[in-house]
Amino acid sequence: MTQAAIIGLGLIGGSLAGALRAAGAQVCGYDQSADRAGVAVQRDLVDRVAPTIARAVDEADIVIVAVPVLAIVELLPELDYLTPPKAMLMDVGSVKFPVVEAMARLPGAARAIAGHPLAGDERSGPHAADPGLFTGKTFVLCRSAQTSDSTVQTAIDMVKSLSAEPLIFDAEEHDQVLARTSHLPQFVSTALAMTLRGGDERLAGPGLRDMTRLAGSDPAMWRDIALANREYLLYTLRDFVQQVEELIGLVESEESAEVEERLRRGAVQARTVRSRFDA
Amino acid sequence: MTQAAIIGLGLIGGSLAGALRAAGAQVCGYDQSADRAGVAVQRDLVDRVAPTIARAVDEADIVIVAVPVLAIVELLPELDYLTPPKAMLMDVGSVKFPVVEAMARLPGAARAIAGHPLAGDERSGPHAADPGLFTGKTFVLCRSAQTSDSTVQTAIDMVKSLSAEPLIFDAEEHDQVLARTSHLPQFVSTALAMTLRGGDERLAGPGLRDMTRLAGSDPAMWRDIALANREYLLYTLRDFVQQVEELIGLVESEESAEVEERLRRGAVQARTVRSRFDA
Repeated sequence: MTQAAIIGLGLIGGSLAGALRAAGAQVCGYDQSADRAGVAVQRDLVDRVAPTIARAVDEADIVIVAVPVLAIVELLPELDYLTPPKAMLMDVGSVKFPVVEAMARLPGAARAIAGHPLAGDERSGPHAADPGLFTGKTFVLCRSAQTSDSTVQTAIDMVKSLSAEPLIFDAEEHDQVLARTSHLPQFVSTALAMTLRGGDERLAGPGLRDMTRLAGSDPAMWRDIALANREYLLYTLRDFVQQVEELIGLVESEESAEVEERLRRGAVQARTVRSRFDA
Repeated sequence: MTQAAIIGLGLIGGSLAGALRAAGAQVCGYDQSADRAGVAVQRDLVDRVAPTIARAVDEADIVIVAVPVLAIVELLPELDYLTPPKAMLMDVGSVKFPVVEAMARLPGAARAIAGHPLAGDERSGPHAADPGLFTGKTFVLCRSAQTSDSTVQTAIDMVKSLSAEPLIFDAEEHDQVLARTSHLPQFVSTALAMTLRGGDERLAGPGLRDMTRLAGSDPAMWRDIALANREYLLYTLRDFVQQVEELIGLVESEESAEVEERLRRGAVQARTVRSRFDA
């Protein structure tokens, strides 16, 4: 029976634990918060929790670290040291290049591989965990130059056991794309929520609920994502501000036909983006 | 039996027609597009359609105009002229101050009242119309200085017959609030969709679908809203850009604690906004 260790029992870690158990693995969890660890046990997401990382990973075949991304990078050397040589070591952070870089430098680089399941929502913690979270979802895998082919195969098999779709992808390209498709929307939602502060929102338009949902996400997780993917995030944020400034300019000068045309192009683009999700 | 005339059979006009029919009124529709009029008949949203506005309104007790907001302002004098003196004249545009101003100048100002049901989504046209669209929704009513008390009461009764909640509100304050809660999110969604143009969105974050939904809305309707509420929209768009610029500055200078604090405040604000919807 596969032994899995999950370090960090938040929404993603807790869901992974539950999904691996459902797939037949024996799962040991660790979280620095005793509260989160307790909830994971109570919700039956793990078989047991360990009091230390060392105790969590000491018999594992698969070790997955599910903490904020800068903490992943910091934790990797210790994890690599503690994890049995035969075991696969994977992370599930939202930014991949700094993780792959750190993995390549590990003594155990061959058994390390970076992962990113495109799943989850604005909720956080094991209370919100769901063993079915990954079903049908894309699970990105990024190898370093040192990752062995057998590690890649083990990761693919694990992803498939979660009913997710493995997608091997370049780490830097992942970060560049995700800056636009995930990190940008997050920061736009935060800025929108901040713009609404202190107002009378009794007259809420029906779209506001959708647009402020992401802003409710875990601040520590997104702080790490922003700093770990700083260059690409800043680039896309500036590109976005430019788009808003252009809209402001068109409305300001009352260029009626141009305003409509820009809205029309936005609608076409929105439909293109959304049809890709449905595909 | 109440005779209602609906001018403009899009999502809102078509839904109003169906809701009024369900409430026992006899409904005659008009749309300059024969296609839309045909769909409204086919979907049983109206009892009949008329070939001209004059024929649609000539026996009406209630006339509701549901076209883009600048077209409402242009159409009001003709509608007031054609509508029987006993009938109530209402609009359902998303910007209220220019409409109330125009209504106050009508010979029939006493029977005119501005309305705005806070319902609908990014879809448009009678295909998307739903007679249950207004159930439990807020339906704002804005009187001009000339609107009679009996007109206000007729409007309240009509709104209640749709199972919506009437809310009497100052027109200018309405436009100021809606600029933030409705018009801002719309333009932010458009700018976000434009920023994603031409990219590889196979790796779509789970939040992107929500954030680009509004961008799919009817460009002509939103062109009119932007121009009719230009000053307040520009003010809120600039306020929003300022929020994005502040986030950019914090990420750029790698102020880790400040980034987290800003995200935390955004999360608190998002929860406040969203709890107001649930109330």
